[in-house]
Amino acid sequence: MTYCVGIKLNAGLVFLSDSRTNAGVDNISVYRKMIVYEKAGDRFMVLLSAGNLSISQSVREILQVEQLKEPNHPEPITIWNATSMFDACRVLGQAVRHVYDRDAESLKNAGVEFNVNLIFGGQIAGEGMRLFQVYSAGNFIEATAETPYFQIGEYKYGKPVLDRVITPDTDLDEAAKCALVSMDSTMKSNLSVGPPFDLVVYEANRFQTDKVVCIDMQNPYFRMLHQGWGQKLREVFDSLEDPVWDESHTETPLRTQAGGRAKPLKKISRAEEKLI
Amino acid sequence: MTYCVGIKLNAGLVFLSDSRTNAGVDNISVYRKMIVYEKAGDRFMVLLSAGNLSISQSVREILQVEQLKEPNHPEPITIWNATSMFDACRVLGQAVRHVYDRDAESLKNAGVEFNVNLIFGGQIAGEGMRLFQVYSAGNFIEATAETPYFQIGEYKYGKPVLDRVITPDTDLDEAAKCALVSMDSTMKSNLSVGPPFDLVVYEANRFQTDKVVCIDMQNPYFRMLHQGWGQKLREVFDSLEDPVWDESHTETPLRTQAGGRAKPLKKISRAEEKLI
Repeated sequence: MTYCVGIKLNAGLVFLSDSRTNAGVDNISVYRKMIVYEKAGDRFMVLLSAGNLSISQSVREILQVEQLKEPNHPEPITIWNATSMFDACRVLGQAVRHVYDRDAESLKNAGVEFNVNLIFGGQIAGEGMRLFQVYSAGNFIEATAETPYFQIGEYKYGKPVLDRVITPDTDLDEAAKCALVSMDSTMKSNLSVGPPFDLVVYEANRFQTDKVVCIDMQNPYFRMLHQGWGQKLREVFDSLEDPVWDESHTETPLRTQAGGRAKPLKKISRAEEKLI
Repeated sequence: MTYCVGIKLNAGLVFLSDSRTNAGVDNISVYRKMIVYEKAGDRFMVLLSAGNLSISQSVREILQVEQLKEPNHPEPITIWNATSMFDACRVLGQAVRHVYDRDAESLKNAGVEFNVNLIFGGQIAGEGMRLFQVYSAGNFIEATAETPYFQIGEYKYGKPVLDRVITPDTDLDEAAKCALVSMDSTMKSNLSVGPPFDLVVYEANRFQTDKVVCIDMQNPYFRMLHQGWGQKLREVFDSLEDPVWDESHTETPLRTQAGGRAKPLKKISRAEEKLI
């Protein structure tokens, strides 16, 4: 499995990926799932991949040389000369379709689904930052202010904290922290997601970044997050009062067949209200 | 969708279920997914169901009258005369198989998978409390001290908090609180899980309970949890320091094709360490 997240903020972009792949729990390996495409001052793009590893590796391989021929364009569009992230993403979509044409039938004959999920984001000089999610069919959607992040792979465990924290106004380091907490929750609940983690933080309109880091379990910051988040979460949980069982009954009936009779319902309320 | 959780503690059992079903987002309904079977002083059992509603309702219907005939038993085993939760669960498994025999082929012809998931737990006089998860095939597994809870339906969003809090020594009200926080996280991230919620708390060796409650969004305790957990989670998040980007570089290379050159990696560390 895999967990990758890409976040688009007013201040910039944050990308985080794990590096564990598995073909069954008895076959766990480490593969990096992030690639940075950078032409300093001109374009900065990051690709995160999940799904069938042979497909995503093939896509990454041919993306470098993929050419999108358009009648109204003098020369073919590549990720290196595209004038918009949208066009660059179309090149990526075409790369996915080329791998499909090449491999899908054989995969199907082997009973393997053609499954790849990609997050592709960045900025090209002349336009703002953009973030896309690309599907197995080569089609894609773009992140908006209402939905400023994409996740691929094992996304559910790590989604609640993103939903609670991330808005377009979130600052970059805070978003990086949030992505790492999201990764930590995912890693805790799914064995097939694991370190090292690749983190890239891009500041708007820089067209390059030096904030690229590989984080393993020895990383002091991630260790602090891992321990601190778990421990403080527990403290918060303990700080919330337990329910108090009220002797009065609610109206709502619980549909029950307990020996054929209906069950009376108690109320639960808060200690402080009992004291009033 | 559905989210149900059953927890087995030394002190007793906790059961929580949502009440939302959907046949597509344009067809959302409220169905209770919990039934309590109680013969005061003799047995107390709770059934939670997820999956295809027509299947789970049929199972619940026939479970009342289901009989397991055994050569070495003078009279057929039912959930009302079973001498162990294990036998009661076998009766439930047989009920699932009867519904399978009745409906599976027609469902298959209609392209519908025979899909039902059940949590069944309780206590019968003469033995300790037991908690089971029953699958579509009518087979089942039992909770242990290492894995003291079961979830069915949309389980992922709500799993991290259970993993962090629940142990066999957790007390009942704390476990009820944990189940409700788990439900709150699930509800927040999945539209198809919603109130009202049915909560049952059973104390060991009581063979009955009056702690049965239906919780809607007006419930003052759940409202407090819903707001308090979200707000305090945010405070904890804010209390964790942001990463500090260190000028020194790590050894680990990030596999990258950024314009063909390898990308140097920074370190992230903790503010306090920078100060040392």
